[in-house]
Amino acid sequence: MDENGQRGSSRALYDEIRARIADGTYRPGAALPSTRALAAERGFSRTTVSLVYEQLASDGFIETRAGAPSRVAAGAVPDARTDRDAQISAEDGGAHRHAGRLSVIGTRVAALALHEPVPTAADEIDFVYGPLAGRDFPILPWLKALRAVERQRSARLAYEDPRGNLDLRKALQTHLSQSRGLSCSVDQLLIVNGSQQALDLCARLLISPGDPVVAENLGYQMAHHVFETYGAKLLPIDVDSHGLRTDLLAQVPRAQMAYVTPTHQFPLGSFLPIGRRRALLAWAAERDAWIIEDDYDSEYRYSVRPEPTLRSLDSSGCVIHVGTFSKTLSPQLRLGYMVLPPRLVDVFSAAKRLTDRHVTTGSQRALAVLLEDGSYDRHVRRIRRLQHARQAALVQAITSHLGERVEIQGAASGLHLVVWFREFAAEKEPILIESARQKGVRLYPVSQFFHPAGRADASIRPAGLVMGYALLERDQIEEGVRRLAAALRELGSDRF
Amino acid sequence: MDENGQRGSSRALYDEIRARIADGTYRPGAALPSTRALAAERGFSRTTVSLVYEQLASDGFIETRAGAPSRVAAGAVPDARTDRDAQISAEDGGAHRHAGRLSVIGTRVAALALHEPVPTAADEIDFVYGPLAGRDFPILPWLKALRAVERQRSARLAYEDPRGNLDLRKALQTHLSQSRGLSCSVDQLLIVNGSQQALDLCARLLISPGDPVVAENLGYQMAHHVFETYGAKLLPIDVDSHGLRTDLLAQVPRAQMAYVTPTHQFPLGSFLPIGRRRALLAWAAERDAWIIEDDYDSEYRYSVRPEPTLRSLDSSGCVIHVGTFSKTLSPQLRLGYMVLPPRLVDVFSAAKRLTDRHVTTGSQRALAVLLEDGSYDRHVRRIRRLQHARQAALVQAITSHLGERVEIQGAASGLHLVVWFREFAAEKEPILIESARQKGVRLYPVSQFFHPAGRADASIRPAGLVMGYALLERDQIEEGVRRLAAALRELGSDRF
Repeated sequence: MDENGQRGSSRALYDEIRARIADGTYRPGAALPSTRALAAERGFSRTTVSLVYEQLASDGFIETRAGAPSRVAAGAVPDARTDRDAQISAEDGGAHRHAGRLSVIGTRVAALALHEPVPTAADEIDFVYGPLAGRDFPILPWLKALRAVERQRSARLAYEDPRGNLDLRKALQTHLSQSRGLSCSVDQLLIVNGSQQALDLCARLLISPGDPVVAENLGYQMAHHVFETYGAKLLPIDVDSHGLRTDLLAQVPRAQMAYVTPTHQFPLGSFLPIGRRRALLAWAAERDAWIIEDDYDSEYRYSVRPEPTLRSLDSSGCVIHVGTFSKTLSPQLRLGYMVLPPRLVDVFSAAKRLTDRHVTTGSQRALAVLLEDGSYDRHVRRIRRLQHARQAALVQAITSHLGERVEIQGAASGLHLVVWFREFAAEKEPILIESARQKGVRLYPVSQFFHPAGRADASIRPAGLVMGYALLERDQIEEGVRRLAAALRELGSDRF
Repeated sequence: MDENGQRGSSRALYDEIRARIADGTYRPGAALPSTRALAAERGFSRTTVSLVYEQLASDGFIETRAGAPSRVAAGAVPDARTDRDAQISAEDGGAHRHAGRLSVIGTRVAALALHEPVPTAADEIDFVYGPLAGRDFPILPWLKALRAVERQRSARLAYEDPRGNLDLRKALQTHLSQSRGLSCSVDQLLIVNGSQQALDLCARLLISPGDPVVAENLGYQMAHHVFETYGAKLLPIDVDSHGLRTDLLAQVPRAQMAYVTPTHQFPLGSFLPIGRRRALLAWAAERDAWIIEDDYDSEYRYSVRPEPTLRSLDSSGCVIHVGTFSKTLSPQLRLGYMVLPPRLVDVFSAAKRLTDRHVTTGSQRALAVLLEDGSYDRHVRRIRRLQHARQAALVQAITSHLGERVEIQGAASGLHLVVWFREFAAEKEPILIESARQKGVRLYPVSQFFHPAGRADASIRPAGLVMGYALLERDQIEEGVRRLAAALRELGSDRF
């Protein structure tokens, strides 16, 4: 990371902690996270965090003692205004506002501590999950499609159907039928700004404050956060190597919704078998609950066959199927879709219109061209081979360098693996990550995907890493795992 | 309209009325709107509506009597399932769900009767407001910018800053300063999917159920609807030829928010003078209320000079400034922006991320290029001249063909006029519109912009039309007004 980036980050961290003290998140006397834990969690070097803590201590906001956690200083609160606050007050003409100026939802959103993505240095080997490599994007077909649709600009530039461009919905209908065995009418398709918007619309239209919502634990936090901002009461249900433990659903007498990733459980990578699928559907039908089926990366099945979606098995019209082009084309395109039960079409269509009218027309029409002329299918076949080769390289490297020390989970599909470390407990994830980082390898802990209520046993469950490979070439993957193994050797399991 | 279009529309109308009967909106014995009123409101021919009513009557859902309003039949409800419902039940396997399956917000969205835009025949002269002409779009600069940014695709396709692409925010910061005299930091700018998303985010983050929100009456219904879906209690305040009547604000002891269009009041076109601006700001500061300043078409000022925005006058940090590229480039691009008070930046940024991560990167970067290389400014100067010429042609045609029978309002700026008809009361708008329609002219009533609570005096206030001209060439404008004048002559004021 360059000098400026690191300085900017430490400044942001300093401001953030002062803000958390000011708003009462960290109360006087409360222990702050250890520098090691915070460094690993946020992707800073431990030195950076230590420097930030020293600065906070010398400014009187926290108290540090060797061998004990740093704590918020007793007198920190009255003067605990960050520079940001000071700037805000100045621009506001000094008017101080009570928090009640935000809505109930706004207050919940403000209370969320969303993790900012951390910039990576050019020479770092980054096993991040989520981003795709720019060189894998089908630039020529995309540009050709953009040019074609922009030149066919219509005489009247008016708001479009909120459900999306009809050409795209027709092409998608065919695509879903052929690639996913999922049949639906074009009326049931709603084009959205990526699957995140699908989750937001579901939360808004289906969850009232206090409604119980079944969530996978471990699970996709950006979904859980959205549900919680609308007031959902999350009910975390454990997942195992076959996905959601539907046997535990009997404990849930009432739920408004269940959010699941049955094709490739996030992050563990398991596939929900047909028996559990039927059990989940039966439970939902009986409880009158909606199911959101997040099919976020079903294109990447390497050793499992396509299986029927929950939506295809659904006979009671309770499944909302959500898909995205963020994993095959680019997360920056913001293109996703929903397959809605017919009775939800009107209300989702109205909500999409009130929210932002419709997805930008040019991208929709360009995607329709890619789907229609076969270049999307060609691209998916190509990128699937590429990602499979990367994954095989990762499995190979882990097996040869880490061997019996680890267990690999989720290698049948997707763009990431989970690697469990037999010798370390989960509470040791931060030090493991920091050690690798000092060797120029960026890794991500599995613990971030636990629901807060399900994290208590970090001293007994094993440490785990979520390792994405979509950004890396095979030689980088091999080198990254080699460095991780070296870091582990230096640590030695006896240190724990 | 072609045969299919008309048939499709009448089918949709039939289904809709049956659905409204089924869900209790139209209760047994209740009077339906007159065929004339419904035809004008929804843009159907009166014949179409009459046929739909006849079909509903012969199917037993309504009762028609000559000279009296049609009413919902007494026995209509138990069997009042639309074909849509039947289809839904079939696909749902017959499971019937209670409305409680929607959230509180979802139920409000479902209850809204949003007007669907009505297709226009090719030979119709359409004075619609909103759409822009495809031929006015700067296609070559846009394509060039798209090509340039797509070729500079970055190595890592990751989610971007939810506030928007930094290049675009920098370019926009300069643009707003130069064109609008509005100064802000790039941190305060949030790029959104058109101004509709800005309104949605404001509603979600700032309005809790029951919160009073000041709204202009007449005003922009798509904003009011959004606020109401989040539970706002709308307080309609009258507007006059100088915009919002700030003298009436003293009656509002408490409000969470005021939504205003001070630069070009929608739809009346007035400009809020500096005295009222200051009164509004003082009221908001005292009440601790947010102000949304919707600056939707400030680029089109023909005979008024740029004036300071509310945001520029705001010393208490309560103004949220909202702008859009839908009126200068295309509503299909879905590009708008917000200038936020500093203390709202973090919560809006988090909410944008939870909602849909960020606006699609390609469009943002292409727009940045247009702003930076001067082609956007050139385009705005060109389109402003074009629209001014169209507006002058409309004023000229109205003056020469309708003369003293009408009064023109809002000709100083914008993309539409309001025309008041001295001889007709507002309740006659539908017949006026239908008469013009029979001569191939599509017109839109001003009454749709009244808050429901403020519509009672339709028998005493004059009829009015909102006439947009952005789609029309000068000869079409002249011809359209000539036909309107002919329709008026045939009607004669004595018929009323």
